[in-house]
Amino acid sequence: MNVDPTVQIGDEVEIGQCVIIEENVKIGKGVKIGHHCVIKKDTIIQDHVRIEDLSILGKLPSSNKKMARKPEAHLAPLIIGSHTLIGAQVTLYRGSEIGNHAFIADQSSIREQVKIGQQTIVGRQVIIEPNTTIGEKTTIQTGSYITADTVIEEHVFIGPCCSMSNDKYMASGKGKHTGPRIRKGAKLGNHATLLPNIEIGEEAVVGAGAVVTKDVASRSTVVGNPAKLLKREP
Amino acid sequence: MNVDPTVQIGDEVEIGQCVIIEENVKIGKGVKIGHHCVIKKDTIIQDHVRIEDLSILGKLPSSNKKMARKPEAHLAPLIIGSHTLIGAQVTLYRGSEIGNHAFIADQSSIREQVKIGQQTIVGRQVIIEPNTTIGEKTTIQTGSYITADTVIEEHVFIGPCCSMSNDKYMASGKGKHTGPRIRKGAKLGNHATLLPNIEIGEEAVVGAGAVVTKDVASRSTVVGNPAKLLKREP
Amino acid sequence: MNVDPTVQIGDEVEIGQCVIIEENVKIGKGVKIGHHCVIKKDTIIQDHVRIEDLSILGKLPSSNKKMARKPEAHLAPLIIGSHTLIGAQVTLYRGSEIGNHAFIADQSSIREQVKIGQQTIVGRQVIIEPNTTIGEKTTIQTGSYITADTVIEEHVFIGPCCSMSNDKYMASGKGKHTGPRIRKGAKLGNHATLLPNIEIGEEAVVGAGAVVTKDVASRSTVVGNPAKLLKREP
Repeated sequence: MNVDPTVQIGDEVEIGQCVIIEENVKIGKGVKIGHHCVIKKDTIIQDHVRIEDLSILGKLPSSNKKMARKPEAHLAPLIIGSHTLIGAQVTLYRGSEIGNHAFIADQSSIREQVKIGQQTIVGRQVIIEPNTTIGEKTTIQTGSYITADTVIEEHVFIGPCCSMSNDKYMASGKGKHTGPRIRKGAKLGNHATLLPNIEIGEEAVVGAGAVVTKDVASRSTVVGNPAKLLKREP
Repeated sequence: MNVDPTVQIGDEVEIGQCVIIEENVKIGKGVKIGHHCVIKKDTIIQDHVRIEDLSILGKLPSSNKKMARKPEAHLAPLIIGSHTLIGAQVTLYRGSEIGNHAFIADQSSIREQVKIGQQTIVGRQVIIEPNTTIGEKTTIQTGSYITADTVIEEHVFIGPCCSMSNDKYMASGKGKHTGPRIRKGAKLGNHATLLPNIEIGEEAVVGAGAVVTKDVASRSTVVGNPAKLLKREP
Repeated sequence: MNVDPTVQIGDEVEIGQCVIIEENVKIGKGVKIGHHCVIKKDTIIQDHVRIEDLSILGKLPSSNKKMARKPEAHLAPLIIGSHTLIGAQVTLYRGSEIGNHAFIADQSSIREQVKIGQQTIVGRQVIIEPNTTIGEKTTIQTGSYITADTVIEEHVFIGPCCSMSNDKYMASGKGKHTGPRIRKGAKLGNHATLLPNIEIGEEAVVGAGAVVTKDVASRSTVVGNPAKLLKREP
């Protein structure tokens, strides 16, 4: 274990073997940290959070010459809300905020400037890109990909292995990047595909394997490739 | 290295650097364990198993307030059959059983109450959900997602990046969760999508990118979205 | 830290905690290596490379009884070109070569005998199978799967969560395995599916969610399942 002397640690904290905790990290009471974790500087871990083995919290973004999106120079510390669980082999970036009682499963990866509401579930191997907001009590199931510049409201259900995009011109440098807006209570079946800048209305349903090329009205159900209206509730 | 004194270790075992082995773990003869692995309590590793770097064996499931499925209170130890290979950066949960001569590739994740037959191959980044049975000599290629409550028989081939689901009502709390039943010798092309509670018959073929919305008869081939019959062998 | 005495280390190298560096590794000047990394024997890391936490470089391939493809007995060392970034929780195999100024993001996995051109970007959780060549200044976005025996030229854009295959007969042992050939400047939308042995022509565009079953001519756009011609530039 290698803990910087500036780290603040609450009562009844348990820390595993070979854990590295950098400067100015704040760890609330009753927190448990698994083996081989790396907690980067300034990270704030609130009370009763549990972090499982081999996870990285508070990572800084990087870039290379070819990338259009350069990371922000000044990111706020990563904040993990109380009673939240962070699974094993997870990477969370600096500049994001995870609500209370959330569940961030194994091998998931959440970039900077992401906000996740309380009690929300993020499944295993889910990837969330930067500048994205996810509401309370939403579920994002295993293996789904949430693109950058996305809004997902509360009580949304995203099935396993869904995919989204935010750049209609595919890195041609034209147009603004805009991800989907997925409204309250909407549901996406597994392996659904969303094109950029689409709105999925409140309580709308996207069938499994659908490829959604335009907005879906509230309480509508769409299926197929390209997705077509199957039915609409009044 | 941190090995609990209750651990039983066979002859000619090789253990890497910074490995953590908890109480009551049993390690057979000729086992090799890579660097930075975490072997949780009670795990049973049979003879000549090889475990590569940064893997976690015998992890307990967790949950949060919002989850419908609560983990079982009493799970049997994880058992790894003899001569099996566990890749790097893998997570295997307690309560599962992996057969002999199996191959569980890097970055894969297998939940509790999963049974995997001998010589079966599980590709990189494959995720297998709880309460699932996979037969002998089956191949699940890289990046595929196997939902909970699934039966996959022997000699099945699942191509890369396939997806399944088990909940027709998408977390509405209605109906029983039932994954697919994939019969002996069936083959799924890459990126295929299966809806809940579907049977793929013996030696049936699902084309790449097909979205399967109903049962597929034995020796039939289906393609498209929704998948339609292309041909049927006698 | 556990560094073999045969390791060559350049000036101004920074090495994290609990790093394991095996024999004959060569580390250029100004290299930074994160915590808990494992650098396997003979790996060559050129000047100013950065490797983030919990990554594995130079891993040897393995196999089991059932696998058709046996790993090569003699693989050249892994080479990482100068100024390249290797993210966290990555696995790179021996026998591959990554160009200068490349970006290999977190949780990605690159097998043996892969060559990646300079300035190319490989997104998070991307998997690249063996015997594959990727040109310069290409982007492979997050979660895409690149099958074995593939050629991807320069300035290609592969959106998130794309999938490919190389075996028309799905492990029946018939025919030669051939992945796609994706020509200069081609673009694939997110969640696209390619069948085996397909050519995507220069500057062709594959729509999001398309299932490509045959060659796509240069400067053509295809969409749908199966993918059909939408338009063709002169």
